Amino acid sequence: MLRRAKKRGRRKAVVLLSGGLDSATVLYWALARGYACTALVVDYGQRHRREIRAARAIARAAGVPIRLVRMTLPWGGSALTDRQRALPKNRSFKRIGQGIPATYVPARNTLFLSLALGLAETIGAERILIGANAIDFSGYPDCRPAYITAFQKAARLGTKAGVEGKGVRIEAPLIRKSKAQIIRLGLKLGVPYEKSWSCYQGGSRPCGRCDSCLLREKGFSEAGF
Amino acid sequence: MLRRAKKRGRRKAVVLLSGGLDSATVLYWALARGYACTALVVDYGQRHRREIRAARAIARAAGVPIRLVRMTLPWGGSALTDRQRALPKNRSFKRIGQGIPATYVPARNTLFLSLALGLAETIGAERILIGANAIDFSGYPDCRPAYITAFQKAARLGTKAGVEGKGVRIEAPLIRKSKAQIIRLGLKLGVPYEKSWSCYQGGSRPCGRCDSCLLREKGFSEAGF
Repeated sequence: MLRRAKKRGRRKAVVLLSGGLDSATVLYWALARGYACTALVVDYGQRHRREIRAARAIARAAGVPIRLVRMTLPWGGSALTDRQRALPKNRSFKRIGQGIPATYVPARNTLFLSLALGLAETIGAERILIGANAIDFSGYPDCRPAYITAFQKAARLGTKAGVEGKGVRIEAPLIRKSKAQIIRLGLKLGVPYEKSWSCYQGGSRPCGRCDSCLLREKGFSEAGF
Repeated sequence: MLRRAKKRGRRKAVVLLSGGLDSATVLYWALARGYACTALVVDYGQRHRREIRAARAIARAAGVPIRLVRMTLPWGGSALTDRQRALPKNRSFKRIGQGIPATYVPARNTLFLSLALGLAETIGAERILIGANAIDFSGYPDCRPAYITAFQKAARLGTKAGVEGKGVRIEAPLIRKSKAQIIRLGLKLGVPYEKSWSCYQGGSRPCGRCDSCLLREKGFSEAGF
């Protein structure tokens, strides 16, 4: 009873959970800060649908409820949603993050943040937490701090919560951390990284050659693993 | 052949088409300006799904291609998506537009604009056109000019098109027009209003009492019909 009452009083957050290591770390970071979290998972027809299974496993391990949005997007536009397009492989770290690669999904974070905003407003959550990162990243424009700030403003002006109250705050706690820093933080927080999935290719085993596999490997190696 | 070549050179626009009279007017406005339009229709589980049929009929009449996004949103939060909630009916015009009513759908225009942004970027459209209106409207925060401007900034910063080029411009040509002005404009442009659907209730005939029916009636009456 006491626990329940306590839970009822906790501040709520919506965590965008992809199943990769960044968003898993954000989830554990939020739990450590005392947020009552709801994980939002989006099935947008991604090639690596395997990550949705990973997201479910991570949410289960963390003991948080999950909301799954399924959508059919009637366009391609990315190597992540269009299997006819080749995934960039074996790129040097110097090239990863320089320019916007073929795996860029048009307006993906805008779409994810919109969904999170709708959910947050509906359940009365005061925070949206997103694992966007602008250091060891693929160069996506919608992972940069200036973009998050701009979306925040639109979110405030475009919602009842923002007009009538304090609104929903969007936070990207990993945005300026290296992959190694993220992993070190996550290991301290007990993130079950073995359940996470980074590979863009999907399938049953990571390919080890796409940008996402390479950044993951670099992170663990720099973190001393 | 000549027509085809001409068509190829036309500037592209994505028009958010709900099936109501504002978005139908925007579509015809864009066609009159020479845009090659693609209509984006969203099935988000709205109570008045009847409007999707209206959107299809309007797009067909205008001769523009349609893209339909279907999504299951695993939350309610609005009288438009949750049939357990009552629709506000028979409100006075003084009350309509004062405060945010139960038909407000959390973050709806943010979600619609995100989808339009993804589609626009994918097909290389330079404009997104939305029928948002802040005069004879239900008081939704995401229909106001300041919100559209803020979303525009996020769209520029968060897309490849915005970072590498001129980006996608969002335009709401009806935002400061009264319903009567919109209808007069539409009739000049040949909008087939008989195919449009405004009623929030859905069903086979408009209820005549919800905000949307009342605003439509007021518009036609003030326009002299």
